[in-house]
Amino acid sequence: MPAAAIAAVTAAAFQALVREAVPMTRILRPEVERLEDGFVRIRAPFDPDFLRPGGTVSGPVLMALADITMYGLVMSRAGAVELAVTTHLNMAFLRRPAAAAVVAEGRLLRMGRRLAFGDVLLYSEGVADPVAQASVTYAMPSEA
Amino acid sequence: MPAAAIAAVTAAAFQALVREAVPMTRILRPEVERLEDGFVRIRAPFDPDFLRPGGTVSGPVLMALADITMYGLVMSRAGAVELAVTTHLNMAFLRRPAAAAVVAEGRLLRMGRRLAFGDVLLYSEGVADPVAQASVTYAMPSEA
Amino acid sequence: MPAAAIAAVTAAAFQALVREAVPMTRILRPEVERLEDGFVRIRAPFDPDFLRPGGTVSGPVLMALADITMYGLVMSRAGAVELAVTTHLNMAFLRRPAAAAVVAEGRLLRMGRRLAFGDVLLYSEGVADPVAQASVTYAMPSEA
Amino acid sequence: MPAAAIAAVTAAAFQALVREAVPMTRILRPEVERLEDGFVRIRAPFDPDFLRPGGTVSGPVLMALADITMYGLVMSRAGAVELAVTTHLNMAFLRRPAAAAVVAEGRLLRMGRRLAFGDVLLYSEGVADPVAQASVTYAMPSEA
Repeated sequence: MPAAAIAAVTAAAFQALVREAVPMTRILRPEVERLEDGFVRIRAPFDPDFLRPGGTVSGPVLMALADITMYGLVMSRAGAVELAVTTHLNMAFLRRPAAAAVVAEGRLLRMGRRLAFGDVLLYSEGVADPVAQASVTYAMPSEA
Repeated sequence: MPAAAIAAVTAAAFQALVREAVPMTRILRPEVERLEDGFVRIRAPFDPDFLRPGGTVSGPVLMALADITMYGLVMSRAGAVELAVTTHLNMAFLRRPAAAAVVAEGRLLRMGRRLAFGDVLLYSEGVADPVAQASVTYAMPSEA
Repeated sequence: MPAAAIAAVTAAAFQALVREAVPMTRILRPEVERLEDGFVRIRAPFDPDFLRPGGTVSGPVLMALADITMYGLVMSRAGAVELAVTTHLNMAFLRRPAAAAVVAEGRLLRMGRRLAFGDVLLYSEGVADPVAQASVTYAMPSEA
Repeated sequence: MPAAAIAAVTAAAFQALVREAVPMTRILRPEVERLEDGFVRIRAPFDPDFLRPGGTVSGPVLMALADITMYGLVMSRAGAVELAVTTHLNMAFLRRPAAAAVVAEGRLLRMGRRLAFGDVLLYSEGVADPVAQASVTYAMPSEA
């Protein structure tokens, strides 16, 4: 798929929707840096409340960011289907993330009629090696 | 293991620690209802901010609650090892959770020298069937 | 759900089907010890070919056994729907399994219209603590 | 990491080891097509025994291939550490794989002192879209 294929929603529309519709993730103040058909990059600016003992970003921050990144991947292909829901999220925590902004890059692996699969890598801003990897699946709303 | 084996921390001590130490999970206002050696039950009282489109509790709420439940399981056996960190979290979202409090029940599957494994079931308060199941692994801090 | 609810297939019918239909798992020579509505126990008698370096049972043996255990759970509720397929399998390897028979116990967590979710614990025969835990999801065949 | 960095074992040595040491995977007759530092490609030539009802390649074939691909990734960096063992394997089954050879491509995400993390994509030979994605973690043998 071409890297810059036109997405079914704009980055701005998706960012407004996710900030408005999913209150729990408002704490991330997500900035949708790029949203193309099948590719999404979202940045969560650093907040001291991200931290856990040891001074690293806590797991729930990374998981929430991975989840909304997959939400964006679904919408990039299918449009603003708000009622798509997560069915599975698997995260491997690779390295302790620094006290910094977190950047998530998601790629759509498959958009089926019932299930959408994606892969998300998460980074501490400015560091090349990922801090976490997530495999996320959404169920598409039933027709009818 | 006997159901009421003495834990290495008290419920009250763990609740204070997790509320203090992991700011992201403060929004859950977790109430540690039971904490025994290898078994933990935590309740997150309902907050309208838990909801996502469709009026169900959002995935990040469930994942954050599962993560701190495993944190409690680790401490129930090993004491207050704040520097234990999540290495893996896998969640299956079974049913759409109602707009209600969420209750997590975790069981320790193995406490190894390096890794601790647990299983967490999450419920909408007052409903018998679970809304999500999580397998969570923590890495124990290195000696020295 | 009552422990001995009548299943939609018999243990013998499921055992014959899985041995016939899934050649890869024939090496396990699976013995379906119990199959009730929502509960399945399957035993794989020890074979020296199960072993890997270190003298423990290899991961692929455990994963294949978990997969067919979930296949049995689906059929225990829905009958002989051969075309149900795995969508997700997550396994945590808890302990090194001895050179012994492997026993899997599966519980159905949810049987939806589209997806079926189960939890499988695997044991070295005769040992109380599980050697692995799996969360497995199957997609039900589309109507029509 | 440069694409062709020298690996700590050769493809031929790893192929001989895995065929010899892991009997369960002999049925895959794995051909190690490429093995570099942090990258491995393995091909399993088609065998009618791979199939399950519906005429697609069965899940256990894909999981076994993902597992040995991660074994190769570990050895590509650390040398022939036979006693490294799987701790976690998560697989998402994206599409029904055709009755064809299966090709796995693995990338090392992190090689830690205790844990090694990798990402594996599996393909039906000759088809561009992956049929499955796996996240696999190995524990390194303890020093001493």
